[in-house]
Amino acid sequence: MTTTMKATSRVNGVDMTQVKETVAALKRDPSLARFQFRASNRWITGTRNSTRIADFHGVGRDIEHPRPFQTEADEPPVVFGNDSAPNPVEHLLTALASCVTTGIACHAASRGIRIESIESTLEGDIDVRGFLGLSDEVERGFQQIRMAIRVKSDAPPEVLAELANYSPVLNTITRSTPVEVTVEEA
Amino acid sequence: MTTTMKATSRVNGVDMTQVKETVAALKRDPSLARFQFRASNRWITGTRNSTRIADFHGVGRDIEHPRPFQTEADEPPVVFGNDSAPNPVEHLLTALASCVTTGIACHAASRGIRIESIESTLEGDIDVRGFLGLSDEVERGFQQIRMAIRVKSDAPPEVLAELANYSPVLNTITRSTPVEVTVEEA
Repeated sequence: MTTTMKATSRVNGVDMTQVKETVAALKRDPSLARFQFRASNRWITGTRNSTRIADFHGVGRDIEHPRPFQTEADEPPVVFGNDSAPNPVEHLLTALASCVTTGIACHAASRGIRIESIESTLEGDIDVRGFLGLSDEVERGFQQIRMAIRVKSDAPPEVLAELANYSPVLNTITRSTPVEVTVEEA
Repeated sequence: MTTTMKATSRVNGVDMTQVKETVAALKRDPSLARFQFRASNRWITGTRNSTRIADFHGVGRDIEHPRPFQTEADEPPVVFGNDSAPNPVEHLLTALASCVTTGIACHAASRGIRIESIESTLEGDIDVRGFLGLSDEVERGFQQIRMAIRVKSDAPPEVLAELANYSPVLNTITRSTPVEVTVEEA
């Protein structure tokens, strides 16, 4: 399906020639693997704000996206917003879903596993008494997240489940990643 | 600035009458505070996939967003994509930025602290040898995330920094949140 375009080594839509070249470059010079992703956010009002993603650092240099990406956030009315955009924890589920899916597609490609389809549904449980400051015994974040994935491919599900573990977002959430927040006067 | 629209109790664009009513309801019946957020994702090809957010559960019932939100993810060319959308770890930064910002605006409102502006920049360090499976000693996720916030308000920065800690996404990332991933054949 994804190999008909060119007589290149595309598997699952991933250019394996490029993957091999990148991997070889990072093995020669591991400092090229140090990436930094960046975002800036501006509060609009209430529960509305906007995040801009314009560039990142990787393979030894600053790289601009072809255009800046702008993503809005809001809350539904029951959480005091106008429901004009996904809320922050929904954006977190988006990050997790997209990361695990990309991880499976890419790592399957590098093992020669053909993927025909990947679909998933996610649920995250949260007790909003934590966020609202109504209880110190309730976690403020998700208590648990579940991601149920259905894949059509020529490999068994248990092999694909292993590949999900390469996901950086999955690792960031499950590992207790340090976040340094500083506030100063504008 | 945000109080001129109506003679209601809006602070920082947050309707404090509604906040008080919701808080009272959750205190009467804590089961109403059990929310579940949901997403579904569909792989397109390579590093491209699309996440749909249509509904959630909260205050004791399933609630639909006025329209489903659709969010795309891709990777830049150096990570084997076409740069058509933010990548998953950039979506994670968006989730964190929007959540901390909303948390500050809402909790400031409930304390009567007027906010004029909130802006932030975020950086997340990641060594892509982890994601690529080139090293078992390198973390697959972010090694560290930094969020630098600049606020114009009538409260000192150290008070606002406390409010950032209510953020569910911040808590989810820093706490080591359980994520259950299952894979089955489609």
